[in-house]
Amino acid sequence: MTKDSVSAVSWRQEEGVLCLLDQRALPAEERCVLCRTVEEAAQAIENMTVRGAPAIGITAAYAVVLAAPEGRDAVRAALDRLARTRPTAVNLFAALERMKRRFEAGPGLEGEALANALLREARAIHEEDIAGNRRMGAFGAELLPDHAVVLTHCNAGAIATGGHGTALGVLRSAREMGKQVKVYADETRPLFQGARLTAWELSRDGFDVTVIAEGMAGALMRQSRIDAVIVGADRIARNGDTANKIGTYGLSVLARAHSVPFYVAAPWSTFDLSAADGAAIPIEERAEEEMRLLPNGARLPEPIRVWNPAFDVTPAANIAAIITERGVFRPPYDFR
Amino acid sequence: MTKDSVSAVSWRQEEGVLCLLDQRALPAEERCVLCRTVEEAAQAIENMTVRGAPAIGITAAYAVVLAAPEGRDAVRAALDRLARTRPTAVNLFAALERMKRRFEAGPGLEGEALANALLREARAIHEEDIAGNRRMGAFGAELLPDHAVVLTHCNAGAIATGGHGTALGVLRSAREMGKQVKVYADETRPLFQGARLTAWELSRDGFDVTVIAEGMAGALMRQSRIDAVIVGADRIARNGDTANKIGTYGLSVLARAHSVPFYVAAPWSTFDLSAADGAAIPIEERAEEEMRLLPNGARLPEPIRVWNPAFDVTPAANIAAIITERGVFRPPYDFR
Repeated sequence: MTKDSVSAVSWRQEEGVLCLLDQRALPAEERCVLCRTVEEAAQAIENMTVRGAPAIGITAAYAVVLAAPEGRDAVRAALDRLARTRPTAVNLFAALERMKRRFEAGPGLEGEALANALLREARAIHEEDIAGNRRMGAFGAELLPDHAVVLTHCNAGAIATGGHGTALGVLRSAREMGKQVKVYADETRPLFQGARLTAWELSRDGFDVTVIAEGMAGALMRQSRIDAVIVGADRIARNGDTANKIGTYGLSVLARAHSVPFYVAAPWSTFDLSAADGAAIPIEERAEEEMRLLPNGARLPEPIRVWNPAFDVTPAANIAAIITERGVFRPPYDFR
Repeated sequence: MTKDSVSAVSWRQEEGVLCLLDQRALPAEERCVLCRTVEEAAQAIENMTVRGAPAIGITAAYAVVLAAPEGRDAVRAALDRLARTRPTAVNLFAALERMKRRFEAGPGLEGEALANALLREARAIHEEDIAGNRRMGAFGAELLPDHAVVLTHCNAGAIATGGHGTALGVLRSAREMGKQVKVYADETRPLFQGARLTAWELSRDGFDVTVIAEGMAGALMRQSRIDAVIVGADRIARNGDTANKIGTYGLSVLARAHSVPFYVAAPWSTFDLSAADGAAIPIEERAEEEMRLLPNGARLPEPIRVWNPAFDVTPAANIAAIITERGVFRPPYDFR
């Protein structure tokens, strides 16, 4: 994997397999997890080998292709299995819906012809995501001043998407536009996507990046010039309420209290126009072990309880703008 | 160490040594670090074998006793060395000032007589702290409803003090008063004092305790009934501005945004009446490694930067009441 080509998801045409950058192993190791079956890909989504709403959608799209050689029933089963992996990121369901439509549009297709048709659709989803991120990045970059100091949460970068990134894509586009950008990255407990992924991804691109614990964000805003908070999203409701990695909501409250503009960057595939507001967004709770395992090898024993929601909902009122490939939206939001 | 006698600091009279509960090893192991010299005790404070503002003060007081057999110059050197351990917790300086006054009040004392005089003072500091916590606890417990759900940060418990605890002492006193209390504990990055110490301490006392990551506090307040946030303090200025573990300030902003009362519980030794406001409080920055070491054994490499302030300052305006052994103070604060 060369420095310029970091990619969370790639299809290996010769072998007909899906290659996922193993994000659990970063930053210590850059290795690929090969998925040869739908089940392997589904588990890779569940165990967060691949994560990030757009990357999950792209992975699921390619995973459907893996079922094609086994026939049309296998493709139907794949669509069902993949829809049961993670509930919050709506891009997953948007991608599966597109794959299903393509599947149903060619009722006579079997074997290699079916695989090729599905692969073309998966590739289109992937390429549109990258192109969308670049347009989104250009729109978002206009919002940042030169010498911007930006705080971000979790990882909404190249490896959370098809490439370039959503929140981090805005930073990349700002730099391509000639603006200097300094980044603070929330480490993002419990899985440290900010420390492990965002810092790694931005640092290898030459950004000045500083990792903080989430508890430091308030003190940082109070004592430093933070020009903007930019985060990604896993699902956005019609009214602009946004589900994103747990901790995003608290960050939005802090940003508001310090008059720091809080931006969400997300492609159109992240919008759930069937959800009127955030209350309609299902929030995944993940395994307790993610919270119980402590760094010194200790484990929090029962009867100590833990809570491990993977996401929270930031109300539209806390969001200064939502940056998409269709432009920058300002409140009041009314997506349709 | 029996279940009823957990104590962060104890003086072993027979051997004339200081026994510190090694808080770095909790909850995996309950072991004692014996300090036979001032330097050992000073390093134990620096490396957080013992932590918590009142416990640091008590440790420093006993540590001065360790110097007595080596003469009066050694005691003077001990006072200097111990004052250079950690800058923020003012209880350290309050305890050293008392030990110094006792030392200077007996200019002819040497050897065992000197040691005994200093030991009496250290014991008095220790016992007054416990008694103060119990009075503080009774005052604070009145503020909580029955079936209270309380969120706390870091560890302001029995092992952060001489015993009983400040913030957690209030919870213990509420229970002794017949009130039921359910506790949420912020895990408290980077050293996990909430997960490792508070959950352990409360759980062994039979409390219902749930550990959350700091990023979850906002979502918790938004969706649950949190009756109060209670934290300890490392230094309180005349106007009520309060330095406490990093993350406290952000929590106070969240509490305010959700109309949850935010309480500080601290003994009088935590007040720095020479500090007009929070700007006069020195904030310790700790070693980068605490932030760079990740749970999966990875380490954040340079050029990734990290920031590791150990404390932040919560402005008095965010604090609904300050609970002390002298009573409950409400804003506007004007301590003197």
